[in-house]
Order: sequence, then C-alpha cells, then structure tokens
Amino acid sequence: MIRVAIGGPRGKMGQEAVHTIMNNENMELVAVLDHREIGELLSESPEFPASYDVPVFLDLDTLITMISPDVFLDLTTPHQVFEHTKLCLQRNVRPVIGTTGFTDEQLQHCTTLAKNNKLGCIVAPNFAIGAVLMMKFAAMAAVYFPDVEIIEMHHDQKLDAPSGTAYKTAQMIAEVRPSHKQGHPNEEETIAGARGASFDGIPIHSVRLPGLIAHQQVLFGGEGQLFTLRHDSFNRQSFMSGVTFSINQVMDLTELVYGLENIL
Amino acid sequence: MIRVAIGGPRGKMGQEAVHTIMNNENMELVAVLDHREIGELLSESPEFPASYDVPVFLDLDTLITMISPDVFLDLTTPHQVFEHTKLCLQRNVRPVIGTTGFTDEQLQHCTTLAKNNKLGCIVAPNFAIGAVLMMKFAAMAAVYFPDVEIIEMHHDQKLDAPSGTAYKTAQMIAEVRPSHKQGHPNEEETIAGARGASFDGIPIHSVRLPGLIAHQQVLFGGEGQLFTLRHDSFNRQSFMSGVTFSINQVMDLTELVYGLENIL
Amino acid sequence: MIRVAIGGPRGKMGQEAVHTIMNNENMELVAVLDHREIGELLSESPEFPASYDVPVFLDLDTLITMISPDVFLDLTTPHQVFEHTKLCLQRNVRPVIGTTGFTDEQLQHCTTLAKNNKLGCIVAPNFAIGAVLMMKFAAMAAVYFPDVEIIEMHHDQKLDAPSGTAYKTAQMIAEVRPSHKQGHPNEEETIAGARGASFDGIPIHSVRLPGLIAHQQVLFGGEGQLFTLRHDSFNRQSFMSGVTFSINQVMDLTELVYGLENIL
Amino acid sequence: MIRVAIGGPRGKMGQEAVHTIMNNENMELVAVLDHREIGELLSESPEFPASYDVPVFLDLDTLITMISPDVFLDLTTPHQVFEHTKLCLQRNVRPVIGTTGFTDEQLQHCTTLAKNNKLGCIVAPNFAIGAVLMMKFAAMAAVYFPDVEIIEMHHDQKLDAPSGTAYKTAQMIAEVRPSHKQGHPNEEETIAGARGASFDGIPIHSVRLPGLIAHQQVLFGGEGQLFTLRHDSFNRQSFMSGVTFSINQVMDLTELVYGLENIL
Repeated sequence: MIRVAIGGPRGKMGQEAVHTIMNNENMELVAVLDHREIGELLSESPEFPASYDVPVFLDLDTLITMISPDVFLDLTTPHQVFEHTKLCLQRNVRPVIGTTGFTDEQLQHCTTLAKNNKLGCIVAPNFAIGAVLMMKFAAMAAVYFPDVEIIEMHHDQKLDAPSGTAYKTAQMIAEVRPSHKQGHPNEEETIAGARGASFDGIPIHSVRLPGLIAHQQVLFGGEGQLFTLRHDSFNRQSFMSGVTFSINQVMDLTELVYGLENIL
Repeated sequence: MIRVAIGGPRGKMGQEAVHTIMNNENMELVAVLDHREIGELLSESPEFPASYDVPVFLDLDTLITMISPDVFLDLTTPHQVFEHTKLCLQRNVRPVIGTTGFTDEQLQHCTTLAKNNKLGCIVAPNFAIGAVLMMKFAAMAAVYFPDVEIIEMHHDQKLDAPSGTAYKTAQMIAEVRPSHKQGHPNEEETIAGARGASFDGIPIHSVRLPGLIAHQQVLFGGEGQLFTLRHDSFNRQSFMSGVTFSINQVMDLTELVYGLENIL
Repeated sequence: MIRVAIGGPRGKMGQEAVHTIMNNENMELVAVLDHREIGELLSESPEFPASYDVPVFLDLDTLITMISPDVFLDLTTPHQVFEHTKLCLQRNVRPVIGTTGFTDEQLQHCTTLAKNNKLGCIVAPNFAIGAVLMMKFAAMAAVYFPDVEIIEMHHDQKLDAPSGTAYKTAQMIAEVRPSHKQGHPNEEETIAGARGASFDGIPIHSVRLPGLIAHQQVLFGGEGQLFTLRHDSFNRQSFMSGVTFSINQVMDLTELVYGLENIL
Repeated sequence: MIRVAIGGPRGKMGQEAVHTIMNNENMELVAVLDHREIGELLSESPEFPASYDVPVFLDLDTLITMISPDVFLDLTTPHQVFEHTKLCLQRNVRPVIGTTGFTDEQLQHCTTLAKNNKLGCIVAPNFAIGAVLMMKFAAMAAVYFPDVEIIEMHHDQKLDAPSGTAYKTAQMIAEVRPSHKQGHPNEEETIAGARGASFDGIPIHSVRLPGLIAHQQVLFGGEGQLFTLRHDSFNRQSFMSGVTFSINQVMDLTELVYGLENIL
C-alpha cells in the first residue's frame, strides 16, 4: 500500500486524482494540502462525498510531520512547486509533479537533492501516457523517416497555436534528425500559411474546431509509405493512468526523472 | 454501343483512357486524334499493344467526317480545347472535356451552342468521382456545420500549396455559408502559419511528404461532434470511372454541364 | 419565439435539452411533463438551477389545455410516445420525437393524423446531424461506389455489435445498390470473423475499446481511390443541434417526417 | 563502397532492388544470380536498360568465387534460400534475406554458422521500415495499453484474412501482455463476425476494397484516450529503404539478426 498525499485537491486535475487514488486498491490517500481552509476533512468540501475522511493540511511541513506520506503528488500552482519539492526531498517524501514550472536552476537543484538522498522524484509535464508514447516513438521513428509533419487539433477555445505538445514533439524530433526544410525547394504558398508553422524545419498545422477535444497526429513519409502516430485525448481521465504509473514508479527510483518518456 | 474518339491518346491520362475504353463492353474506341504522325493505327505507337487497330487522325475535322463518333473525349492541351469543342458541337459530336482551360466567354459560347443544337457536353475539371463527391458533400454539410477546415496532403514534388482541389472545395463551401473567421477571436500563432492558409475564413493546411500521393480531408466541427469527408487518390485510375460515367451521361444530355458535381 | 414543452426533462437527453432550450434565444421552455411529482416548478428538482421556473405537469392533456405549446419535444419512454403523439396531433401541438419505439401501424396512424390536420411532426431516431449526414451521404455515394465497408467504434461497455447506427447505415446503402458479396470470391478467413459481420453483403466491423466514445467510418473503394465518411460523437451535446434544428423545422411542416435525413 | 550481389533480379522485388542498388552512391551492384540463362550481362534481359552491365551467374558458388561480394541480397524462392545462406556464411559473404521460408532448425543452423564465423546475416520477413516500426511500437505500447484492436485494409484481390502483418503484430503484442478477451464480458454479436477475428484475445478486422493497397492500424484504448499506430504502404518502393538499411547494417554485425525490429 503506497501512502499518497495530494497537493491541490480541488483543482480539475486534483479532483480526478483524489477519486483515482481513493479507488486504487494499492494506494491510500493519507492527506491533502490545500491553501484554503476547507475544513479538517476533505469530505467537508462540497466537491467530495461524505465518505472521503482524509485530513486536510494548510501547510506541507506540518503534513509531512504528522503523516509521513510515501509520495506527494503535487498539482498546485507552478510558483509553489519548487518549495514543495525541496521540502519533500529533504524529508524523505517522494515528489510526483505535474507541472512545467521549474527553471533550469531549480531542476538542477532538485536533481542533486534527489541523487544525494537516493530518493525518487518524477517531474511530468504530461501525464497522458498515450501522448508521451507518441512523442517518444516520434523521436525514434524520425531517425528512419526524417520527413515529418505534425497536425494537432483542438477545440476552438484554445488560444495558442501550435499546442505545447506539438512544440515538445517537434523539439524531440529535431534533436535526433538533421534540420532540413520539408517539401520541394521551390514550393510556393499561393495563400500564406498553407504549409504551416515551421519549427526547425518541421511543419506544424493547428486545427481549431468546436467539438474537438485534444488530438495530434505525427506523419512520417518515405518512399512508397506513410507512417502515422496519433493520440486522441477525450477527457482528463487520460492523465490518471500516468499519475498512478508515476506513483508506482517513483517508489523504485533513486533519482529525479524528467518526463515520463524516460521511464516508459 | 457508344462510339468514342479520344484526343491526346499518348498523354498520361490519354493512355489510361485508351485502355479503359478498349476494355469497356458498352463502348468502342473508333478513332484517336494526335498532333504527331504516329502512323495510321494506334498500334504503331510503342505505348500500345499490336491489337489496338484504331485509326489515327491528325485533324479533328477529318476525323468527324470519316468516323462520326458519338462522343469526343478531349484530353489535349487547354489551348486546343475550345476549337475542338466548337467543332464537335457544330457537327453533332458530344464533347467530354477534362480541362480547366476555358475562359468565361468561351464557356458561355459553348453553353449556347450545346443548347441550340440540343447536344450533350460535359466539362469536367476533375474526373475523380470520389473527389467530386467530397466537394459536393462538403458544400451540403457546411450549411449545418459552418466551422470547417481542410487538410490536403500530397507528395513533396508538388510545387503549389494549397492544391487546386482544396481551393475548389473551399470555394464551394464559401458559396453556401456566411464568411467567418474560424477559431477563437483572440487566438494567437506563436509561430506564423500554424493556423494555415485562410480562404474566405476557411483554414487550409497543406502537407507535403515523400510517399504521399493525393489526399484530402474536410473536417466539420460542431458541439460534441466531428464530421469528416476524406478522399484518397492512389493513382490515375481513379479518374477512369469518371470518364466512363461522363461518356454514358453525355449521351442523354441536351445541354452543357460544367462539373461532375452537377450530374452526380 | 417558439413555445416548447419537453417530456422527460430529468433523463440524460432531457437535461441537455432543457438547458439547450433555456439558452436558445428563439425558443421558450413553457412547460415540462414528468411522470414523477417533482414539484410545481422545474427549479424544485435538484438537477436544475433555481432560476428554471418552468411549470411541471404530470399529465399531457392538462399541459396542453393550460399551456398550448407550439412544439412538444418528447424524450419519454417508447411505450408512452404513441399516446403522446396522437394527443398532440389532435390538439394542434407539433410533436418532435427522439425515439424508435413506433410500430409500422402506429407510424402510419400518426402520418395520417398529421396530414389531415396539416400539422408538422418529426420522428428522429437519431438527432446527431453529423451522423445523419453520414448515413445520407453514404446512400448517395453507394450509387457510384458499390463496394463499401463500415467500421464502427464504441467504448467497451457497449453490449451489442454492430451498433444501431451501423445497421441503419448498411440498410440505407443496401436499398440503393444491388446486393453483392464484397472481396474476392475465393477469399478465406484463416480466423473466423476477420471479414466482419455481413449485412446484405456489406461487411461491418465493430471495435470496442475503453476510452472510445461513439465513432463510425464508411469506406468506399473504387479503382485507384478511397472515399471515406466519418462521424465522431464525443458527447451528448452532439444531439442538441439536431433538436433545435427539428424544433425550427417542424413549425413549417404540414406532415410527418421520419428521419432527419429527409429534411437535411 | 559496399559490393552487393542480388539473387532473383527479375522478380518484382528483384527489379526494384536492382534499380535501388544501381542508384545508391555507397553501393555497387557487382553481380546477379539468376536461375534462367538470360545472358552474360543484366543488360541483355529486357527488364533492364542497356547501361546495366552487371555479370549474371547461374550458380552462387561460381559467383562467390569470381566476384567475392560483401553482401548477397537473396530475393529468390524460399526453397533455395537455406542453401544460399549456408554457402554465403561459409564463404565470408554476408546474407540479407527477404523471406519467411526458414524452418526453426534451419534458422538455428544459420545462427550458429554466423556466430562461429563472426559474420553478419539479416533475415527480414518484412523490409518496410514503417511496418516494422509499427509492430515494434505496438509491442512497446501494449505494456501500458493492454486493450488493443487491429484493423488491416487491403485491395480486394487478397485472398487470405487476416494479413500476415496483422498476425505478426498480434503475436508480438500477445508476447508482452497477459491474454484477455477484449470488450464487455457480456457483449453479443447480433451478426456473427462483427467483433472480428480473435488472435489470443486481440480482435483483428480485415477490410478488402478495390483501390486499397496495404494499410494497417493498431488502436490502443485507455481511460479517456486512444493511441493509434498506422502504416500505409502505397507501392513496392516502401521496401527499398529497408533493403539499403539492412545492407548497411549487415556490414557491422557479427551474428544473425531475425527481423528488422531488432536493429531499428
């Protein structure tokens, strides 16, 4: 039984995570950290059923002193995460962090701390295992298929294009293949933008339509063939398998791992 | 038995058409028109087998006088097509034309000629029935799903983007829906081109990869749903069903039809 | 302003419909019919906000007498629908019915009643406009592409295969093309079931996986080309555009229409 | 410069391979092996241009004695391949073999021979790198997504279903995941075959349509997400990148490798 504490239980991800841990037979939700006084027990917050009698703490230090969890799943805001992670690593609690809020220095600091204390720590910018596999496989395939384009599709309420996952995918591909512009050297756009955004020579196309959720395809073309990786994320549940996977894995680690692709 | 003559038998489309008509049990290839002296019979040209004993003419006037075909399938170059079509319509031969080379005046002239002579004439910029259905259905669907994006994918030897079919599709959609910019009003491209080319507010994304042939998707998004039309053209054979369909249809027509979408 | 009453407001579809009508600026929710005593106003039922002050009736006859709605959207159970529809048509209320529960005789009876009273009535087994378009276009395309297969994909809690939509699609295709077995006459399954279920010679393949929602592709193959129709339904919201479309349309009709494909 | 000899140069794969090696600047086609007397030089065979002045041998023993190639690319028939491979491995020529014709004993024999002679040897049932990656990634993904279905699509002249690639994919998945029946335990086919062929609990669906070439999708479902691998093979050229890759790799190997997935 892995004893888990969660930071940020009332956020969208947090609520899903609370339910997931409560229903996982190999894990126990032993405490939550909330910055608002919602009561002594999680059950006092209207988002949760009366049966969730999990103690609520306003302060991570106290939580660790009182509860000594095995793992702290941190779903709080980026600016809190670094302090939390340092504290956990100093006090023998393994952090699992779903954020991208670390600076390089902070990441380096935590890496050293984890190594010195021989403690597992997972920093996961993306918990959706399918999305992480897509990126990992994309980087593997690009060695053999250097010609690649990315099509990402999201609901039309998304403001930024390309998506973060598309950027990250392109970046991982760019690291393993020589940079080159795709398509015919003399190709011409008769309307600007037709050939998409270029990230280090990799075209990225962003589709935005009502009804869509979060989808991405990576297309690799070679003589006489096309190889395609695709991930469709239909709801927030898609993150939960990555959360439980990370909690299980962090128990066996003795260092910091950045990105699930390195342990999948 | 429909008696067919073909103009331009040695071009890529022409060769396919010759074989198609020779193997169609309801059609007879009675003559070909070639601008080069390839011999008296098609079988003398190295592209064709010895059994193709079809007379070759250098001049359409003579061809019509000698052979009186029911239908003239014109696969010659754009600048010849107008003269051919006029001649056919004046001399009781039904033209089926696979070109986009008419000016508006020329098209009007032929339309009048066909109507006056009560003779069928088909002008088909695209003979691939699947592609034409995609465009026709796209225009029908856009009435109910005004939010639409086009993704067209071609081999990386194609120079222009977007493709002609994507343009035509967007044009047909634009005619039936109020013009509006897709996506969130405040959406932002962090790399230029991510949101594609905009044709009257419809984003078009052009993918170019080795291995690809000619593919297009039209995606319609609505609350909670996505509706997609897709056409994959794998080789030139895809045009042949449209050619035989047109030859059969033109026999029953008494006027000029522009675009297969109007008789499918 | 179209004055709408809803039968079955607390069901899954019913709740969505209530919210949809409440938020539609051209419609007014004037009453609901519920078989359980939930109070005098819809707002007394815990599913709805306090602002939904819509009168609740236990009996359709009284509802019509007191409220005289323009349209009755019937989302109740199949065995009630026939009585409701008769009553509406006799008392000048236009029924919009999302059910498949009519017998042929009942349907005939209602058709006659609607015609005699010159009143619109819409019976819609499927309100998802995208799904209806897919079926309608499938029947149109099958005339030119008689070789077709259906792949439907649903979550793995679905018990029956093939899905109702796949059946209906195959049926609509079968009505317009000559029945024929697909594939090579000598084809052989080395594991039974590989070539799918055969509905009048049309193979149907049913995929069931966790994560999936409700998806269907119809694939048409011809020489050198593939034409594909696809519908993805991500949530119950996909039905709502069909509901509002039907309510608007039924006002202009003077007879019963079965299936949205006949008015799209 | 790698000196390559090809067995079976006039077969479909053979012809492609001859052109590929002739046009590869790091390889030289130094000889071919043909069982028919086609002349002293490859250029005497009508399939090849006059410039292909490559010596033809009727006997592999003589070929090796006279030419001593670095690599022998064997595209001959299965029953010859074992003798060829033994001979090559005994005489310091590295075999690259595109066949599935080995028995387990023969494969074991060649494995020992290669190891003893510290000579590279590649046996590749499938040279399409995209297809091999699809299978390799499928096996990797199945660890995290045990629920998987395969859809393979081919032209309607293919006699057997499921395809060999689908079998092989299912086999590789089955080796890494616990066998389990997919879908709901109480699911029911209302038409037999709807849920496809079952290979060790993995459903396989085989689509056969005119126009299709060779396509396969592997779909993995998890809570809230779908992960898809897809390979489209449009023509025989898709095998050539695997052929040149193997010829390059075999030079550095000192043992027999079965399946490109083990060196990709």
